[in-house]
Amino acid sequence: MDQPGSGYFDAAAGLPLHPVAAEAMQAAWADGWADPSRLTGAARRSAILLDAARQAAAEELDVRPDELSFLPSGVHALQHGLLGSLAGRRRAGTVLLHSAVEHSAVFAAADWHRVHGGEVEVAGVDGTGRVRISEFVELAGRPGVATAVLQAANHEVGTRQPVAEAAEQLAGLGVPLVVDAGHDLVYGRPPDEAPVFTADARLWGGPAGVGLLVVRHGTRWRPPFPTDESESGRSLGPPNVPAIVAAVAALRATRAGREAEGRRLAGLVDRIREQVPLAVPDTVVLGDPVDRLPNLVTFSCLYLDGEALLTELDRRGFAVSSGSSCTSDTLTPSHVLVAMGALTSGNVRISLHPGVGQADVERFLAVLPDAVAAVRAQAPGSPAVRETEGRTEAATVLDSRGRRCPLPVLDLARALPDLAIGAELTVLADDPAAAGDIAAWCRMRGQQLVGQQDAGDGGTAYRVRRVR
Amino acid sequence: MDQPGSGYFDAAAGLPLHPVAAEAMQAAWADGWADPSRLTGAARRSAILLDAARQAAAEELDVRPDELSFLPSGVHALQHGLLGSLAGRRRAGTVLLHSAVEHSAVFAAADWHRVHGGEVEVAGVDGTGRVRISEFVELAGRPGVATAVLQAANHEVGTRQPVAEAAEQLAGLGVPLVVDAGHDLVYGRPPDEAPVFTADARLWGGPAGVGLLVVRHGTRWRPPFPTDESESGRSLGPPNVPAIVAAVAALRATRAGREAEGRRLAGLVDRIREQVPLAVPDTVVLGDPVDRLPNLVTFSCLYLDGEALLTELDRRGFAVSSGSSCTSDTLTPSHVLVAMGALTSGNVRISLHPGVGQADVERFLAVLPDAVAAVRAQAPGSPAVRETEGRTEAATVLDSRGRRCPLPVLDLARALPDLAIGAELTVLADDPAAAGDIAAWCRMRGQQLVGQQDAGDGGTAYRVRRVR
Repeated sequence: MDQPGSGYFDAAAGLPLHPVAAEAMQAAWADGWADPSRLTGAARRSAILLDAARQAAAEELDVRPDELSFLPSGVHALQHGLLGSLAGRRRAGTVLLHSAVEHSAVFAAADWHRVHGGEVEVAGVDGTGRVRISEFVELAGRPGVATAVLQAANHEVGTRQPVAEAAEQLAGLGVPLVVDAGHDLVYGRPPDEAPVFTADARLWGGPAGVGLLVVRHGTRWRPPFPTDESESGRSLGPPNVPAIVAAVAALRATRAGREAEGRRLAGLVDRIREQVPLAVPDTVVLGDPVDRLPNLVTFSCLYLDGEALLTELDRRGFAVSSGSSCTSDTLTPSHVLVAMGALTSGNVRISLHPGVGQADVERFLAVLPDAVAAVRAQAPGSPAVRETEGRTEAATVLDSRGRRCPLPVLDLARALPDLAIGAELTVLADDPAAAGDIAAWCRMRGQQLVGQQDAGDGGTAYRVRRVR
Repeated sequence: MDQPGSGYFDAAAGLPLHPVAAEAMQAAWADGWADPSRLTGAARRSAILLDAARQAAAEELDVRPDELSFLPSGVHALQHGLLGSLAGRRRAGTVLLHSAVEHSAVFAAADWHRVHGGEVEVAGVDGTGRVRISEFVELAGRPGVATAVLQAANHEVGTRQPVAEAAEQLAGLGVPLVVDAGHDLVYGRPPDEAPVFTADARLWGGPAGVGLLVVRHGTRWRPPFPTDESESGRSLGPPNVPAIVAAVAALRATRAGREAEGRRLAGLVDRIREQVPLAVPDTVVLGDPVDRLPNLVTFSCLYLDGEALLTELDRRGFAVSSGSSCTSDTLTPSHVLVAMGALTSGNVRISLHPGVGQADVERFLAVLPDAVAAVRAQAPGSPAVRETEGRTEAATVLDSRGRRCPLPVLDLARALPDLAIGAELTVLADDPAAAGDIAAWCRMRGQQLVGQQDAGDGGTAYRVRRVR
């Protein structure tokens, strides 16, 4: 396969098949099509390929071959990993602990666990998206905690999590840690300390259909769902041998050059982190600037709908993703950005791949200000501020109900300068994303969010004081 | 891909990638690698390919595109289909009904359902492996039955099941039928009448990693496991677009010639059904001779271990499978053969594919008698019969404890002719497979199984009277 276009800045959403993966898969079609659990000659050839792939991947991940299973996707591996760990620890309790910024698959598994009688605890994060380790460990030490989950690095803002420390402390408490190794496995190192970890082959140019699940010897683990003998009871259905062979070939090829490539991509990301706030007014770069994934950076732009910017950038040849979903059906902005207390509006996630060079990044930086300006220019006018005579402290009211994020913040930004310093403006808004965004805007602008209260009909009244 | 060797007689265990599937998959790597749920250009191209594949498969299966979902394997599709139907019918009750000869994935799902508080009813089959429809319908009408499962045709003996009649009768009772369309979808027709049906692309030369789940409009269905928005909540993880495109291409190519090919294969199977009992002494052909899968036939040979015969045939260039597992770790013979009351020893399943011709079948028929004789010659000698003075009616005892199937039947066959007509022999055996095999042998030989009783230490005493 060719590299994706050099404007493809969305590697974390998946990559095209790595050339060595395509080659390996075609070769494996001849000898790896049969179900390796059978007794025929074709099955034996298939089993040999599978064993060799498992051995190679185990070496790469520094685990024993029988600790490694192949599942149908990264999501399957992650959910199996954590729910299987819960099932194996039923005697210890039914509480699942995870951070507030895990992959949505963890939240889905947690919901399912709750519906089936389990309990869930969530540990908060700081402003960079890093879990508060003392809170995480404190929660893990409570009675009934069976299993904890933590990602190696956040998939939306790139911040690395303290998995080594968490695994060590939790081991002392007797609570196993399941690590979503995810993006960090491509350029980083496997989470050696974790009793269970998982990964998705799509992140390194492997084919769809392959997730990796490592369950270390001595870890309690039981199949959470109906099972067969496939992959020692850790998967279901005959293993997809050609896809597994391809995924492992791509893993080795990608990790062979990971240090130099990681440094190169980190340099490109540094350039983006530095330039975007200079080139685009009212923009914040999110996540830890140093201890982070080398190839991923996220920023949020005020007064902007993320999906509109995404579409505008796509039109100009750049594919990115967005943690804003103000215009999507769900009306729910990224749970990661909300947990960080970050601005959710106008969010853009960039994740680079080996086919992206310095020139592509410069081209992106040249295009971005225009794209942002074009989208901002499309924002509709704000509602009029009305003065109310009343008993409330904030007599100046801006009615942004029915207007979706980022419009309430835009309305606020337009109206506040007309007030006297020290005066208060009440913004009425019914888009749930406004809560985080108004707070983030006040922080960014040095204004004061005095308070907020229910205004009926699903709306909220936000009281903002002009400080400067 | 090439056809597998012309001695590959195990099509029901999976086929190599169909040439059109390989071609389609390679083409789809360029435009179908991205997660189709995203908003980038690559994602849109991927979504277009996925939509087209869904449309084409839906036409082939005579369903609406939004009734069809793609899952990571046939086993996933089947378990999701039935457990999702149970979840959607929770108000009606918690009883799952299935036939005694379903795929092991149904038994695994039923076990899981039971562990999670559900109940399970199992309907018996006749000597050909066909479900007793009156029993099936009677059980379905009992209070609390939420869902029933029936395969279109049995995967071990080929007998077709009365799915149309079952679906109609169960619709009258308000109980949805989930059909494992499996092998019958390759040469037969989709089970139109069933509210839910599933299939595995590996059966028609599609790649591993693709199962099909059809849930008809108006059918109650809820995700049984943690889910995301993938495939309208019916699957998990981004769809594997290249594999889906390939699976659908192979489905259409295979079904395009299904009538002529089905007739041709049925003729080859007729030839095997007719010749095997003539060429190999003490052999029975199983399953319905007429209303069956065109390409599949099963027989059992007395005094023979199935896996040993499978190995011997493999050595002579023929790949088959076996429902006997007398020498495997589990010691459990095929639940299908047991439910039919058929001889489980020396079982061979043959399933043909388009690359097999008349000459291959004749070559197989020429090789088989020698292969059977060679394996039978390896059987160890029998224990001595001992006369006991005692109060039991059968004073002649043959101790076959510690000897695995097929040895207890072989011991019986060797010892009985030495008795007078009308006399009784007590066979002590502790291999659970002996129960079915001794009963089947007595039926085949016209001898009388007088009774059986617990003989302590996990052994059973079988009383056999010599009738002729």
